[in-house]
Amino acid sequence: MAKIQPGNSATKKEAIIQKAATLFKVKSYTAASMRELAEMLGVEASSLYNHIGSKSELLQAICCKVVKEFAVNLNLIECNSTSNISKIEAIIRFHIRIMLYNFDEVYVANHEWKHLKEPYLSDFLNFRRSYEKKLIVLIESGMANNELKIINPYVATLTILSAVRGLEFWHGHKKNVSQEVLENDMINHLLTGLLR
Amino acid sequence: MAKIQPGNSATKKEAIIQKAATLFKVKSYTAASMRELAEMLGVEASSLYNHIGSKSELLQAICCKVVKEFAVNLNLIECNSTSNISKIEAIIRFHIRIMLYNFDEVYVANHEWKHLKEPYLSDFLNFRRSYEKKLIVLIESGMANNELKIINPYVATLTILSAVRGLEFWHGHKKNVSQEVLENDMINHLLTGLLR
Repeated sequence: MAKIQPGNSATKKEAIIQKAATLFKVKSYTAASMRELAEMLGVEASSLYNHIGSKSELLQAICCKVVKEFAVNLNLIECNSTSNISKIEAIIRFHIRIMLYNFDEVYVANHEWKHLKEPYLSDFLNFRRSYEKKLIVLIESGMANNELKIINPYVATLTILSAVRGLEFWHGHKKNVSQEVLENDMINHLLTGLLR
Repeated sequence: MAKIQPGNSATKKEAIIQKAATLFKVKSYTAASMRELAEMLGVEASSLYNHIGSKSELLQAICCKVVKEFAVNLNLIECNSTSNISKIEAIIRFHIRIMLYNFDEVYVANHEWKHLKEPYLSDFLNFRRSYEKKLIVLIESGMANNELKIINPYVATLTILSAVRGLEFWHGHKKNVSQEVLENDMINHLLTGLLR
């Protein structure tokens, strides 16, 4: 068995986290073992423990990384987009893209967060609540300045977040649809359904 | 411990199936035991086995019941509704209502079907594929006769089915929203997003 591939320590840890996300997605967090992860990486378990303390630490790292990506993106959108509509559009686009291009980590965060230990569990849930709240506020502002029709903002947020999350089924049976069509048509559907 | 409550055999079996759905939802199919189910029903395990052969048979019964409900409803809608739009609206309404009023069984069918044994597994997947296909065809007909805008029908179907499935998160944290508002606003969002 080889050691973990060369590179600086951060890169090695990142490679481990990515592979752990794939393993947790396929086998579930509970059923997956550190031994299997070491096998997938083609390294000895002892070499793995030089970089990461435990299975639990891996789940924390995955969820924390996903949270950071959503937080950074939302911040960028809030700074760069102008209308509420364009902000909502950019958020939906980001969700679709992260489901397509960083699927394993997002899937694990969505499905396995309940196994996080405290304080990571509370941090994760607080972030999710606050993210959802920001979307609700965006929709409320859009209604207030007549960009959007009158609709319950919580229901609209649930509809949008559930629809994009449903892209996990996309991976199971990809149809003859390009990612561009998927992205544009889903945004069009969800966004024009909100317009006056 | 008591025997299973009085009633005819079909009613007793139905009561067991409902309770099994609640147990499988809370604990997962894999982790749940027949002993726990007997305890929830307040009966002896031996009394339970008079009505149902195994845990696997319970999962089959739950999935089969859910499939039948969707099949009967789709059939009714195909017979009674006229335009493609009104058919799609009725389908979305049915999905929302079944997620609200028959949540445990639908949740178990959605999440635990992969534990079905053959031939039940293939039956379930075939039904799901054919149901999805019928929705796609409805959207295609709606586009063909100018009721709906041009949109990829597979993407629109995925958006609709994912959005209504997301109502499983509704149960976790019910907001201050009536079920009427939830139903009407979600239908409005998903349907007007398809209109020309």
